[in-house]
Amino acid sequence: MKVGILGATGYTGQELVRLLEQHPEAQIEFLGSSSSAGETYNEMFPQFMGTPLGKLADEQVPDVDVLFCALPHGLTASRTAEWLERGIKVIDLGADFRLKDPEVYEAWYKVKHPAPELIPQAVYGLPELYRQEIQGKVLVANPGCYPTASILALAPLVKNKLVKVNSIIIDAKSGVSGSGRKASLGNHFSEVHENFKAYGVAEHRHTPEIEQQLSRAAGQSFMLSFTPHLVPMIRGILATIYAQVEEGVSEGALRECWEEAYEGEEFIHILPQGILPQTKFALGSNHVFLQQKYDKRTGRVVLISAIDNLVKGAAGQAVQNMNILFGLPENKGLGGRALWP
Amino acid sequence: MKVGILGATGYTGQELVRLLEQHPEAQIEFLGSSSSAGETYNEMFPQFMGTPLGKLADEQVPDVDVLFCALPHGLTASRTAEWLERGIKVIDLGADFRLKDPEVYEAWYKVKHPAPELIPQAVYGLPELYRQEIQGKVLVANPGCYPTASILALAPLVKNKLVKVNSIIIDAKSGVSGSGRKASLGNHFSEVHENFKAYGVAEHRHTPEIEQQLSRAAGQSFMLSFTPHLVPMIRGILATIYAQVEEGVSEGALRECWEEAYEGEEFIHILPQGILPQTKFALGSNHVFLQQKYDKRTGRVVLISAIDNLVKGAAGQAVQNMNILFGLPENKGLGGRALWP
Amino acid sequence: MKVGILGATGYTGQELVRLLEQHPEAQIEFLGSSSSAGETYNEMFPQFMGTPLGKLADEQVPDVDVLFCALPHGLTASRTAEWLERGIKVIDLGADFRLKDPEVYEAWYKVKHPAPELIPQAVYGLPELYRQEIQGKVLVANPGCYPTASILALAPLVKNKLVKVNSIIIDAKSGVSGSGRKASLGNHFSEVHENFKAYGVAEHRHTPEIEQQLSRAAGQSFMLSFTPHLVPMIRGILATIYAQVEEGVSEGALRECWEEAYEGEEFIHILPQGILPQTKFALGSNHVFLQQKYDKRTGRVVLISAIDNLVKGAAGQAVQNMNILFGLPENKGLGGRALWP
Amino acid sequence: MKVGILGATGYTGQELVRLLEQHPEAQIEFLGSSSSAGETYNEMFPQFMGTPLGKLADEQVPDVDVLFCALPHGLTASRTAEWLERGIKVIDLGADFRLKDPEVYEAWYKVKHPAPELIPQAVYGLPELYRQEIQGKVLVANPGCYPTASILALAPLVKNKLVKVNSIIIDAKSGVSGSGRKASLGNHFSEVHENFKAYGVAEHRHTPEIEQQLSRAAGQSFMLSFTPHLVPMIRGILATIYAQVEEGVSEGALRECWEEAYEGEEFIHILPQGILPQTKFALGSNHVFLQQKYDKRTGRVVLISAIDNLVKGAAGQAVQNMNILFGLPENKGLGGRALWP
Repeated sequence: MKVGILGATGYTGQELVRLLEQHPEAQIEFLGSSSSAGETYNEMFPQFMGTPLGKLADEQVPDVDVLFCALPHGLTASRTAEWLERGIKVIDLGADFRLKDPEVYEAWYKVKHPAPELIPQAVYGLPELYRQEIQGKVLVANPGCYPTASILALAPLVKNKLVKVNSIIIDAKSGVSGSGRKASLGNHFSEVHENFKAYGVAEHRHTPEIEQQLSRAAGQSFMLSFTPHLVPMIRGILATIYAQVEEGVSEGALRECWEEAYEGEEFIHILPQGILPQTKFALGSNHVFLQQKYDKRTGRVVLISAIDNLVKGAAGQAVQNMNILFGLPENKGLGGRALWP
Repeated sequence: MKVGILGATGYTGQELVRLLEQHPEAQIEFLGSSSSAGETYNEMFPQFMGTPLGKLADEQVPDVDVLFCALPHGLTASRTAEWLERGIKVIDLGADFRLKDPEVYEAWYKVKHPAPELIPQAVYGLPELYRQEIQGKVLVANPGCYPTASILALAPLVKNKLVKVNSIIIDAKSGVSGSGRKASLGNHFSEVHENFKAYGVAEHRHTPEIEQQLSRAAGQSFMLSFTPHLVPMIRGILATIYAQVEEGVSEGALRECWEEAYEGEEFIHILPQGILPQTKFALGSNHVFLQQKYDKRTGRVVLISAIDNLVKGAAGQAVQNMNILFGLPENKGLGGRALWP
Repeated sequence: MKVGILGATGYTGQELVRLLEQHPEAQIEFLGSSSSAGETYNEMFPQFMGTPLGKLADEQVPDVDVLFCALPHGLTASRTAEWLERGIKVIDLGADFRLKDPEVYEAWYKVKHPAPELIPQAVYGLPELYRQEIQGKVLVANPGCYPTASILALAPLVKNKLVKVNSIIIDAKSGVSGSGRKASLGNHFSEVHENFKAYGVAEHRHTPEIEQQLSRAAGQSFMLSFTPHLVPMIRGILATIYAQVEEGVSEGALRECWEEAYEGEEFIHILPQGILPQTKFALGSNHVFLQQKYDKRTGRVVLISAIDNLVKGAAGQAVQNMNILFGLPENKGLGGRALWP
Repeated sequence: MKVGILGATGYTGQELVRLLEQHPEAQIEFLGSSSSAGETYNEMFPQFMGTPLGKLADEQVPDVDVLFCALPHGLTASRTAEWLERGIKVIDLGADFRLKDPEVYEAWYKVKHPAPELIPQAVYGLPELYRQEIQGKVLVANPGCYPTASILALAPLVKNKLVKVNSIIIDAKSGVSGSGRKASLGNHFSEVHENFKAYGVAEHRHTPEIEQQLSRAAGQSFMLSFTPHLVPMIRGILATIYAQVEEGVSEGALRECWEEAYEGEEFIHILPQGILPQTKFALGSNHVFLQQKYDKRTGRVVLISAIDNLVKGAAGQAVQNMNILFGLPENKGLGGRALWP
């Protein structure tokens, strides 16, 4: 299986290289970068010294079986049709094909969608929810990091109408790598370290993505509150989610709903009661850790979900999608567990 | 003004020494510690080298004008009557006198209150809310760190009935120093660093303290959701607070309510629109940073509040209370601004 | 290949589990812990949720092919004879068999060596130097973390007499995980974070281990300066090493010496000139990154060496040794590259 | 005393504001910035909210008594003559006036010195060494951060000929703030956090500054090795220094030399034996912490020196120099102690 990566110098790109270099069925054929074409990959990223990864190419994509696009939004959609015509399967780690409605895309991303006609072909690549649908597709919209953590926690409860959808609040926290590799005052070590803040309050672009998927699960359209925060760490997302429980729903029913939804899912772990998720449980791995607590004082359930934003929230999930597209076991190349400590 | 500190080796104790050592009217007479009596303070804490702080005493309190108690809950209340009889004013940085109802204390702290008869004498030492009440008192219950951040943000809105009290959710995040100086696996560097987690979900002891103060402000009793999280940093609390806005309340009214409530308060800063609080704005200082955002999509307001948990959330507020008790300007000894970066 | 781990709850033990669980030829049969026997491994360490690792056993070692001992010094040596008699190969990640002279052991470790008669059987498990010697042995003394980083940088230069041995100074820096999982004030997050210090100046126990190996390489006994420091990070060692270059030795000769010594070594990377090692290049991997700089102003060469203290400095090197003992390719199960970022 | 600050938005500039805003004799009259002129200082740096600091000016310096220049090298020297003519005392926190020989400046800074004729007027502003000389001067070259930590540890021993000057090696470690506020990949949180590296090996610009001062102390010219490292923390420098002790010099003599040199110095603390310096002892304060250890095995002494790079290593020392220039007590405005934790 020949694979290519566009945007190979970003953090998601590097993480794809780390995973695919160890994947027994994948052969990295192409590492593309608009800004660093011509540079030797291993000299830019010495963690790969000794592995023959060659030089970064410009963005002319050769014939590969699958292309991972880890590009800023807008750049992938405009070229996707060409790749699909050439028989290349496309897994987009950007935002271009996640939203089904191009007007919603334009409202939140402030640009016109470059290829709205391709949107219907794209499948939302969250395997635990849409495994069947992904098989046989050629264009995968790999979910955003916050949406992955949020939707996995909420979708079963929403689908089974155990919580009031209009009460949902997602308070999410992410490590700094989520903002990418481009240097800015906002990710300067001295500004971020020993510091904590919210950002994008009530206006983060992952909001409509989460709403779209949960509205689909609920069978009704609704809106929710989503607040991202920046944690002084590199990797990891933890979402703390609040929802009012529907009348008559028992504590046991809430837990059983998750257990049924994720029975047999090897990457999803509903933790034993009393053990709360920590982002580090997932560090460097494709695993998801979930816990819930019913608060009888307020009638709310608190859901907690932890992932590694660069693995299950990006590159790992993309490899999982690739495995599905090519009929491989879903865990191929994704066996690694978290570094601890 | 002769001051004494019980629990002088803990993080709150050290912070009291840092502030009081620079306070122009205070003279540290007594540093007490049950575990380290006899040790030279400066050798335990070389940051004070050159300042003659003497040896740690056992817990026999000499004649001082004011005694700061930075002890685990239960240890202060049992001895307070004696100190008050000797004419010593007491500022308790622990939890013993914060809750007005000893039964609530027992339900959350799992011990019988050692001196319920003293509770009525105690004033809740949040100067921006209860300044008048604090003057002339001899026993101050210094607020908890999470309550300080939470109550300052919410009290004006609740008092003015701008938000629905039953919708309030406080998602709070704290640095590790909040858990004290005693070593445990939970504060081991290798377990906390590059990690993020929630703890005490739906059962943290600061919940009833916040509810008590806000119920008082609201003129009605209610309950709320409170979830603390551990941030891989040392100092700082940021509370992200969600509440449904009452019908007919405008965005402007929400902001004006804060502005009126905190007009002239030198430690409270309602940030200009577009600037979100960061815990680092407050690092090492007694200042509070507030921002709010009305989300018209959901009808909720998001409040954000940032403090240094060891200063405004503990030692700084205690010094502020001391200044009030002794008729000094409230900012005496509290002029320092945050270290940045 | 049935493997057992004694000390399975420490950081080295957890890292052995992480590596061996993915090793295609190894089957973890036994996880021993004196303090946590009876506990379910996955509940203590949820990063392994979903992998059937069973319960921690006490320290009765069953019949396994190889036993990894990740115990405090003194505890392994007293039981090794029994294991060897039962045909179990032993890889000791502690200090008991690293020093050839039991008197040196006693001088630095302050205890009598429990089994000096076994010392001659033990091989120092640094494959890049002693590969041939390791084959066919049954008792491996896995090197210390600082010695691994230091010896790999210095041994070729010392052996080829390119530097003056009496001028060697090793200034080494380690992440906090090197001090283990036991909580103490010294590894309390709030004491270590945003802080940097030296420790054990001129008296660290790894000093004689380094001296022994380098004296062997030099063919003459000598002493050196070694200073460890604590870096506010979890994993990683970087050693900065100074040595006076022998008269007449050219800059080129210094580099060629390394290149010859490590030609074909897949875990050793002599970085291209201009690229300095960073500990993160090695994070979570068994790789070693080296650079050198000849300073003509002072006639000294500065060597820099970076490893992950828990992998090449402990568990990874132990697995490498296991592969050698059992005739497997040395990199089996050790293919992973550093997490970046 | 009217003070102005050029380069007021950098980290050194902000630190000057923090210190001077609390200084009882200083009045900040002018905050200059070439890049941010016109912006409101408090909105850029909300930690100062409530303090009327006004807007940033361009770089036209008004009539002030003293001007602090926190600018990149080259920018101060070209304008200094004008300021001196106007009677403004100048404290340069940059490198322009630190080196006495303009050729050395040009060799290391790769630019021609803009005003070599002013160099003789400049005094090297290290009060503990040159207090007398500083009084009455109008142009102070405030020392570099690494030189401050290094020279204070070495100068007395070198001056008293207790160590062999040609054996000196300085292995120094700094927090990230030392590289300034400008964002770059090199100070991106995700690249620096959980990472450690050396930089500028054998070519850092502070090398000739240290050599110049120590050669002056020794009464003979010599060269030394200096290696800086980047620690994943914001503030703090720790220098670990190695030197061969001269024959016949006792351990006691080494310590007494320091004690005599620094007797009565309120910012210098020679720690009691057994207590090693930590950078955090100095965090946010102008204090210096020293320790030494004689290693009889190798005949070397190891010196350790810790400071806050932005205070004693920059802004605090500049304020100390200002106090000297204006005949104030040297500690005026510098009373604060380290934040701990």
